[in-house]
Amino acid sequence: MAKERLYLYDTTLRDGQQTQGVQFSTGEKLRIAEALDALGVDYIEGGWPGANPTDSAFFDTVEATRATMTAFGMTKRAGRSAENDDVLAAVLNAGTPAVCLVGKTHDYHVTAALGITLEENIENIRASLAHIVAQGREALFDAEHFFDGWKANASYALDCLKAALEAGARWIVLCDTNGGTLPHEIHDIVKEVIAGGIPGARLGIHTHNDTENAVAGSLAAVDAGVRQVQGTLNGLGERCGNANLTSLIPTLLLKEPYASAYETGIAHAALEGLTQTSRMLDEVLNRVPMRQAPYVGSSAFAHKAGLHASAILKDPTTYEHIDPGAVGNRRVIPMSNQAGQSNLRRRLAEAGLEVEKGDPALARILETIKAREAEGYTYDTAQASFEILAREALGRLPDFFEVKRYRVTIERRKNKYDKMVSLSEAVVVVKVDGVKKLSVSDSLDTDGHDRGPVNALSKALAKDLGPYQAVIDDMRLVDFKVRITQGGTEAVTRVIIDSQDGAGRRWQTVGVSANIVDASFEALLDAVRWKLIRDCGETA
Amino acid sequence: MAKERLYLYDTTLRDGQQTQGVQFSTGEKLRIAEALDALGVDYIEGGWPGANPTDSAFFDTVEATRATMTAFGMTKRAGRSAENDDVLAAVLNAGTPAVCLVGKTHDYHVTAALGITLEENIENIRASLAHIVAQGREALFDAEHFFDGWKANASYALDCLKAALEAGARWIVLCDTNGGTLPHEIHDIVKEVIAGGIPGARLGIHTHNDTENAVAGSLAAVDAGVRQVQGTLNGLGERCGNANLTSLIPTLLLKEPYASAYETGIAHAALEGLTQTSRMLDEVLNRVPMRQAPYVGSSAFAHKAGLHASAILKDPTTYEHIDPGAVGNRRVIPMSNQAGQSNLRRRLAEAGLEVEKGDPALARILETIKAREAEGYTYDTAQASFEILAREALGRLPDFFEVKRYRVTIERRKNKYDKMVSLSEAVVVVKVDGVKKLSVSDSLDTDGHDRGPVNALSKALAKDLGPYQAVIDDMRLVDFKVRITQGGTEAVTRVIIDSQDGAGRRWQTVGVSANIVDASFEALLDAVRWKLIRDCGETA
Repeated sequence: MAKERLYLYDTTLRDGQQTQGVQFSTGEKLRIAEALDALGVDYIEGGWPGANPTDSAFFDTVEATRATMTAFGMTKRAGRSAENDDVLAAVLNAGTPAVCLVGKTHDYHVTAALGITLEENIENIRASLAHIVAQGREALFDAEHFFDGWKANASYALDCLKAALEAGARWIVLCDTNGGTLPHEIHDIVKEVIAGGIPGARLGIHTHNDTENAVAGSLAAVDAGVRQVQGTLNGLGERCGNANLTSLIPTLLLKEPYASAYETGIAHAALEGLTQTSRMLDEVLNRVPMRQAPYVGSSAFAHKAGLHASAILKDPTTYEHIDPGAVGNRRVIPMSNQAGQSNLRRRLAEAGLEVEKGDPALARILETIKAREAEGYTYDTAQASFEILAREALGRLPDFFEVKRYRVTIERRKNKYDKMVSLSEAVVVVKVDGVKKLSVSDSLDTDGHDRGPVNALSKALAKDLGPYQAVIDDMRLVDFKVRITQGGTEAVTRVIIDSQDGAGRRWQTVGVSANIVDASFEALLDAVRWKLIRDCGETA
Repeated sequence: MAKERLYLYDTTLRDGQQTQGVQFSTGEKLRIAEALDALGVDYIEGGWPGANPTDSAFFDTVEATRATMTAFGMTKRAGRSAENDDVLAAVLNAGTPAVCLVGKTHDYHVTAALGITLEENIENIRASLAHIVAQGREALFDAEHFFDGWKANASYALDCLKAALEAGARWIVLCDTNGGTLPHEIHDIVKEVIAGGIPGARLGIHTHNDTENAVAGSLAAVDAGVRQVQGTLNGLGERCGNANLTSLIPTLLLKEPYASAYETGIAHAALEGLTQTSRMLDEVLNRVPMRQAPYVGSSAFAHKAGLHASAILKDPTTYEHIDPGAVGNRRVIPMSNQAGQSNLRRRLAEAGLEVEKGDPALARILETIKAREAEGYTYDTAQASFEILAREALGRLPDFFEVKRYRVTIERRKNKYDKMVSLSEAVVVVKVDGVKKLSVSDSLDTDGHDRGPVNALSKALAKDLGPYQAVIDDMRLVDFKVRITQGGTEAVTRVIIDSQDGAGRRWQTVGVSANIVDASFEALLDAVRWKLIRDCGETA
């Protein structure tokens, strides 16, 4: 039997931005859009052009995507034509191939919130969608509060959908805006909507996670006949978030009855990048990835119970409902086992370090990683620090230089103009080729602005590294993340630094200490060493 | 119509302990059991007596609970009688009124993992459960891998359940051990099990969250007829966790059709303690509470979108599916570019600042927020810093003290034992009640460990605040987040600090600077001021 096509619509960049504490920059939006396109979603909702400058800048900048780029907006207001609605015009001006417009379908909201008649609202929907279609765009109608509206006045809610459909909307998206509708209700109402004359092939579902049922509600809607599913990566979104595409996608591709019944735009090879895509988004947001996240969490295939762990070794399918590799994740089994060592060899090979199977250094490295992780380090993404650690254990870390000591002073006081100013000063003592060198630097940039203590330290360190000087000149710190985490019994600070060089390399290092400046300096030292290995070789 | 009784079974202390990184102490188990009992669950599964010392100590220590205290274990092994099985004896020795035994129902696991015949397994189930009943205990049978077993060999799986039922088990719990069964399958299989002769009133459901459907799967099982639901607080558990009782309980008590159809042991008054219970567990685990958690997360009723925020002011039910107070949570309307003056007034009122509609101060505050946000500040969640800013604009910020200047020195060098050590020292000059005070502090904690420059600064600041000293003594920093962000044309550091005090208050402040220590100090100062306003009042 031929598979039916199921469409995936991502709204991470629009609804996902409603997450408390989330405000994407244009650059971050571009990076996320690229990842979504590589994953293979069908639609990328990029934002609301005109509503905020970042969204407008995104649409101006984004390059052509395989996915249908979609701008979000709302149906025209009453008392003006669609052609003369400035909000609608701004949305169309983004020039996207598709436009999604939100509108009311709940009678109470029409009269109470908009203060217009029920007929006026239907006309607004009709005229707005028709205008989008007339402009040659693919039109989507986002039916806000649809399920509550249906419960209050099903016939009016249906009339709203029909107005959009008849005006030429490709998709009618049923939104459970406040997240209160349970999966069985969604299933039943979708069935009734289809029976009422809206074909399932034109219906989408948009759920929220307020009862922890957003994923289940989406699946229930698919079971009932909808053919478009909306959601966000990592379940970002207002309040408790939107339907989590990171959970939905593997279920639709790997689990029955979905895998056999439907085809999506996502290839199995792309699915293997899902874990990485999820982590990338957390990195952009400076969030700690949720370990328990279904499919992509670092604990998703971690087997702690003794009984389970031994059964897993006999037959993974006993405690794993899918193969972790299918989503780019991996199995985690308590220490000292073959799986651990072969994973390690793969990571070493990625760093250019070939180590024979059974080499005793492998167990030593695993021990060190375990001990460091207990102190608060993480090597999940800090591949450069992992390499430094492994090289140390393998005796393959060149002695480029040694830091003997440092001192940083941070002062904040009034200057002679009675203005509070701050200034840091760092002294670093290094030994290079047997020669001790003292360097001092302050924290001022070329414009005379204070850039803080880590900047002063970094400049002092880089000031006189003798023969290595030239090599690190093109290095710069491009991102810097700090978290309080648990190291042993004490809270410690974990710093993760992203560095970049003139050759376009980007690498990540980690430092841990109760002292934030010290943790930063440790990550900085790893970053410098990694760069020296790359450019001076191992024999330096 | 009389409501049917639905039983809630909590396994936080047993299955919840399988969470990666979780290892409860006996004291922590006692504290959690007390909270569960206050909440009103019907069963508390305390652990596996004999399997580990903490669990045994818990059962020895725990006092009588309203809930039925339950010990977990497994069915006897083949080749010995139930009376002579030492594992079973240890479980019974805990002396709990109820005992839950896990056993196999999947034919493949019986032959491959246990290596016994299908008949031997059925006899093990029968004999073990009969033994529990003979000891006068309430008996529960935990059917491991039940759904996979049913798919492989339904008739054998059913025979296993019947053996337990006929042996006198009060409950037969259907477990989806690897978390791979989707809600509609659970629904259909439960229906078939009931049709096969196991009454729904004797059936329980135990799901895992590997596809993010554990809550939905539990509800589907209730819809199909089971009358016991198992889960954990905050969804703790192996891999992706168990069914989250913190989400299930409010849905069962507050949402239809459940609220009208079922009665549980949980009173509405106890439900109002749910948010606090959830936070308490995170505190025991030293985890940052999940903001997006359904019902109990700090973002669960946070309305960020401009359109939503203004609708909420008119009628909360538009974007809230339940009253946040019903679960002890509260509504949050964060500041944002889109927020108008009415939102602002509401935020101010929440901070105890009543400002008249149309007061010119409102426009001034919005202007300040906008300017600060352009510099890199964010007031989305940093409500305490928002309040300080507003009070400043309103002339209602008491002059508790003024920081004149500070200096911090960070040193890292070898100590006399040739070990690299670091130490920070801070001097802070404050003016309190017209008197200038110099305080100095180092960064060492009572154990002599370096806690870094922010700690030294914080201690120096707190060292001599005269009359305000005692008030800030119970403050502690519980989370600390740092991001590189864009302020004007330069990259700056944004620090967000979460503070907590002895009264259980938790508040968030923000600081921005190119200098990370300075940004931290700014957030710290706001935190201290906020606390002083709370405890000393405005007129201090």
